[in-house]
Amino acid sequence: MSPSGNSPGTLDDPGISSGEILSDEELCSNIQKKIDAKTKPPGSLGKLESLALRIALRQKTAEPTFKRPTILVFAADHGATAHGISAFPQEVTRQMVLNFLRGGAAINVFARQSGMELRIIDSGIAGPPIEHNGLIRLPAGEGTADYVIQDAITSEQLEFCKNSAATVIEGLERSGCNLVGFGEMGIGNTSSASLILHFLGNVSLEECVGAGTGLDLNEQNHKLNVLQKARDRKPSITEPEEVLRSFGGFEIAQMYAAMKIGHEKGMLLLIDGFISSAAFLVAYCENPEVLSSAVFCHRSKEKGHQKLLEIFQAEPVLDLEMRLGEGTGCALAFPILRSSIAFLNEMASFESAGVTGSG
Amino acid sequence: MSPSGNSPGTLDDPGISSGEILSDEELCSNIQKKIDAKTKPPGSLGKLESLALRIALRQKTAEPTFKRPTILVFAADHGATAHGISAFPQEVTRQMVLNFLRGGAAINVFARQSGMELRIIDSGIAGPPIEHNGLIRLPAGEGTADYVIQDAITSEQLEFCKNSAATVIEGLERSGCNLVGFGEMGIGNTSSASLILHFLGNVSLEECVGAGTGLDLNEQNHKLNVLQKARDRKPSITEPEEVLRSFGGFEIAQMYAAMKIGHEKGMLLLIDGFISSAAFLVAYCENPEVLSSAVFCHRSKEKGHQKLLEIFQAEPVLDLEMRLGEGTGCALAFPILRSSIAFLNEMASFESAGVTGSG
Repeated sequence: MSPSGNSPGTLDDPGISSGEILSDEELCSNIQKKIDAKTKPPGSLGKLESLALRIALRQKTAEPTFKRPTILVFAADHGATAHGISAFPQEVTRQMVLNFLRGGAAINVFARQSGMELRIIDSGIAGPPIEHNGLIRLPAGEGTADYVIQDAITSEQLEFCKNSAATVIEGLERSGCNLVGFGEMGIGNTSSASLILHFLGNVSLEECVGAGTGLDLNEQNHKLNVLQKARDRKPSITEPEEVLRSFGGFEIAQMYAAMKIGHEKGMLLLIDGFISSAAFLVAYCENPEVLSSAVFCHRSKEKGHQKLLEIFQAEPVLDLEMRLGEGTGCALAFPILRSSIAFLNEMASFESAGVTGSG
Repeated sequence: MSPSGNSPGTLDDPGISSGEILSDEELCSNIQKKIDAKTKPPGSLGKLESLALRIALRQKTAEPTFKRPTILVFAADHGATAHGISAFPQEVTRQMVLNFLRGGAAINVFARQSGMELRIIDSGIAGPPIEHNGLIRLPAGEGTADYVIQDAITSEQLEFCKNSAATVIEGLERSGCNLVGFGEMGIGNTSSASLILHFLGNVSLEECVGAGTGLDLNEQNHKLNVLQKARDRKPSITEPEEVLRSFGGFEIAQMYAAMKIGHEKGMLLLIDGFISSAAFLVAYCENPEVLSSAVFCHRSKEKGHQKLLEIFQAEPVLDLEMRLGEGTGCALAFPILRSSIAFLNEMASFESAGVTGSG
């Protein structure tokens, strides 16, 4: 009784032949024509239409596909947690990584639901090495230095983060993957993200600092005081990688580098919440072109994220009032992305379906 | 290398044993405890937490499941289209139903993507019968009467709609289905929905009338004039089924009855956009309890929908700026609903995962 079994195919693409090399403008116009020929009032699929157009343009084809969609979760510790800037103690980074490896965290559940592969990366967790086949071990150190008194990341460590991110992305490329979601775990990393937003986004620290994993207002004031002290150590830096070295985290540095390399390789980049958007800001300040590869998946409840979205002039796919990270927004938005390219590839046109147009 | 294969199970539910009969308050408190014990900062999954709680309460269990999730698309024609109130001609209802049956419409694509079954119902399409194995034929007539000059639906036709809706829902129940999404197709049916909202929601007609499938401002003014004329025929009716008979459509009447019966049978009801929310309004005015079964899936761009959501004090799952109907919002929201119960069923607790809590 189900009429949903057969696919109508895409034989009726208006003027798109695969051999031809088209300019971006011609490709854009052809994709838009294909969208408008589908059996629906023009524009009635809203954000799905702009997503489909964006993804098709990124892949330079009117028949986009997702191959081996993967979420990378970068995990690392932060020296500044010594100042009590998080509701959770530092060892929770390590404990949550073990939870990821056993499949029990939110991102495991959502990645399974969405049919995405999941890779967990030790970007620099404090304590002895975690021995587990499922873990990609690329630690730049055992947590960053305390940025209240010195730079968080050395030049050598940043170089290592860039090289190791390249290794990860090249591995994904070899596997055929063309879509990467970015998640993270690191107790204290909303503080790093706040400092990065403050310096590179020209936003006051007050507007950057939020509840993180659940600080009350007094605790948020304490966090703000600690971050002001850190900021005052070098208040006038502006160069993206210097900001990253001074106040970042290893997971943020690897994400930043992986986003940059993923963009160069033509991958679609799924950006999650506050931390991964802060990593993206570093890449964006170096090269605003990276924006053409990005899909912002979810509007985080963490205060500073709204500022980041304004900088990128981005309207995220979802607004589920989450503030968890781990790449959860990417995994939850992915089915919507998949549906956006599915309508482009599978829906019938007015002509092929014999449906009368409007007017 | 993927750590996402194994499931941690749900052995650590705090105080939930399946044999016991609990009051709603006890069940609610137990489910909330289970949610708060998961390895994430309290509340950090935002709307997914309230969805999980709502669905678990509806199913009266801390381990909710979805069985044979199904979308019903009710299709019918409207006599009032004779007044030129839509951007598309009446025959498009029939043409789109054929498109549904061939699998080429947006709802076909999205239902396939979300793993939902799809059933198309002829609630009263104009013209000769459509012969197709995939179509459930329950027409109450060949389109409604023109409500500008007489009632759209007779008492006998409304009775038929209620009985036929019962047949459909009972069939789903026998198949094991416990979740139904409501979609529709009917050229002119935003006009019926506007009149229903006007009468039952106490909202001025001006605020109820929008662009539908794509009217410009002049055409919207014409639509408003036609609907004012219809309204003035019986301006002071208030009884839900009388409003439905006077100005409704067969697809709206069958949806209304199916929602009511689905609620009585303990099913979860997925409400799509403007038309299905207007059908829900009729059920809600008869019995506000029906709200406990409903999940509002998508905020439509159609003007009147916001008013309906305000009446129900509902915050929909998605806001993708669509205005298509067909149940597309239900199909797109379903993966989020599935993820909400998956986190409740599959995520580890702080205790089982050995993760330190906050504080």
